Amino acid sequence: MKEVTVGVDIGGTNTKFGIVDREGNVLFQDSISTQGFEEFSDYLKGLSEALRKGLHAPGANYKLLGIGVGAANGNYYKGTIEHATNLKWKGIIPLAEMLREEFNVPALVTNDANAAAVGEMVYGAAKGLKDFIVITLGTGLGSGLVANGQLINGKHGIAGELGHTTVNYAGRYCNCGKRGCLETYVSATGIKRSVYKLLADHLEPSELRGISFDNLNTKMITDAARRGDLVAQEAFEYTGRILGTKLAETVVHTDPETIFLFGGLSLAGDLIFKPTIKHMEANLMPVFRGKVKVLPSGLQNQAAPILGASSLVWNYLEEKGKVLA
Amino acid sequence: MKEVTVGVDIGGTNTKFGIVDREGNVLFQDSISTQGFEEFSDYLKGLSEALRKGLHAPGANYKLLGIGVGAANGNYYKGTIEHATNLKWKGIIPLAEMLREEFNVPALVTNDANAAAVGEMVYGAAKGLKDFIVITLGTGLGSGLVANGQLINGKHGIAGELGHTTVNYAGRYCNCGKRGCLETYVSATGIKRSVYKLLADHLEPSELRGISFDNLNTKMITDAARRGDLVAQEAFEYTGRILGTKLAETVVHTDPETIFLFGGLSLAGDLIFKPTIKHMEANLMPVFRGKVKVLPSGLQNQAAPILGASSLVWNYLEEKGKVLA
Repeated sequence: MKEVTVGVDIGGTNTKFGIVDREGNVLFQDSISTQGFEEFSDYLKGLSEALRKGLHAPGANYKLLGIGVGAANGNYYKGTIEHATNLKWKGIIPLAEMLREEFNVPALVTNDANAAAVGEMVYGAAKGLKDFIVITLGTGLGSGLVANGQLINGKHGIAGELGHTTVNYAGRYCNCGKRGCLETYVSATGIKRSVYKLLADHLEPSELRGISFDNLNTKMITDAARRGDLVAQEAFEYTGRILGTKLAETVVHTDPETIFLFGGLSLAGDLIFKPTIKHMEANLMPVFRGKVKVLPSGLQNQAAPILGASSLVWNYLEEKGKVLA
Repeated sequence: MKEVTVGVDIGGTNTKFGIVDREGNVLFQDSISTQGFEEFSDYLKGLSEALRKGLHAPGANYKLLGIGVGAANGNYYKGTIEHATNLKWKGIIPLAEMLREEFNVPALVTNDANAAAVGEMVYGAAKGLKDFIVITLGTGLGSGLVANGQLINGKHGIAGELGHTTVNYAGRYCNCGKRGCLETYVSATGIKRSVYKLLADHLEPSELRGISFDNLNTKMITDAARRGDLVAQEAFEYTGRILGTKLAETVVHTDPETIFLFGGLSLAGDLIFKPTIKHMEANLMPVFRGKVKVLPSGLQNQAAPILGASSLVWNYLEEKGKVLA
């Protein structure tokens, strides 16, 4: 029998899940609609049925060790999803407990950025590293901090909200209710806002002048920058400057070996890495200069959220093993 | 036999040391000159002799479990003091190794702020806490971060340099070579600089106008503020605003339960705590509001540096026990 874990990534629209081995091979993958279920109990029934299909597929011979779930507002300590704004089911959902009862294996829940950090440690570019940070650049900016080989969850299970450090106290409005948060500048949405600011401030012609805010995305900005579009290039420079400057602050907190960038913006390569590293180094306390690497995530593929979620189980079992050993 | 550890606090002028039991009682305390020894080997001989006097004092019946040392530029991983600017002995001093050879017990070295954090956990107000931060307010601003019940040392052993996050990129010159570092505003030296700035900017009479920069100290500013001196009061408000605003950034990194303030400035009580808490709360990401306490250290006494250093040994033995258990 092959030992496997299940990773579940609950998004507002769809839920993706997969069966994953210790090396990070996704042996089975499927999805169900998240939105399609009015009642959470029906959703859980649908998810469980779909999962069992994979576990008992013809030829499959799996020993299920546990289920990991990544979800916005996932709370690791309580195993709950709490007041998620992107889901219909309100209040506090005791998801880990329900999955444990259904499958009789350990079940763990955390938010997507923390799952990404554990995934990087278990399967990705952070294997063997004890002190690192993963920054996820999606609609917002998430982060997972690892120190002493352990994810920092914090007292209330909400550590690693670097997207809500402040860049400018009179800056852009943020969903969180504050102004000038890092993620309003550094994220897929942030760079769109920066493009629009630059189009407003400057006279340069730009192919991005023909695209509405709603239609603009990171890939278009990346492609334009690679074609020499000055506004798009400046948007990356501006984004990298803000990110690098803030990373210099983060570094003096936990002294990481590497900071990994994950997600759409990080696929722009040098366009984002060069200004980020330059401005991080320029703003670092001298004793840290030249010591901290900024690298792309090793999990840059479609299955990353499933891998991140499934990695929670391996990490949990290994930590438990360490304590028992 | 009573199990004890030794704590050694190496300052630029004097070295203080003491014998401490598990409850944090200082059973013996003495000091030698740090400056008085040209050669490090002579200093170590002097320190060892003085320590043995305490360990073998009449009536003493101690079992020495280990020696902890707090020193600026102490490196926990290597057990060294590296390129300390406040000591005559240059280069890298393998202090832990030399103490182990001399006393045949574990010896540990770290910087003073990290020692303060471990001391708070072992003897002080952080007993039983797993996620907290200690900020030491002395000549500079040091900090020790604890997450998952462990001190964050970082990859290079230099985590927790919150004094060198940036308040103002065009701000005050800092010893580290940067400008606008937090410790140039929030520390015994920082508040002096702020008093001088306020005296320059404003017309209000103040008893502090009669005191030179070299003679001014935190206690004078505190006493003046309590007597109603507007400039001194404003200096605390200004200091607390800057500290609280930066703590809001730190909180979203590690989600601590409590932030402890240690050292001279923190003895000013409400003068510093009120503006610090007010501005931290105002700038926090909403989900963290009302969750993080800011409290005075539980080790506010003369022996604190000795306690902090000695606590390294208890912490080391307990962590070792946990792994072996």
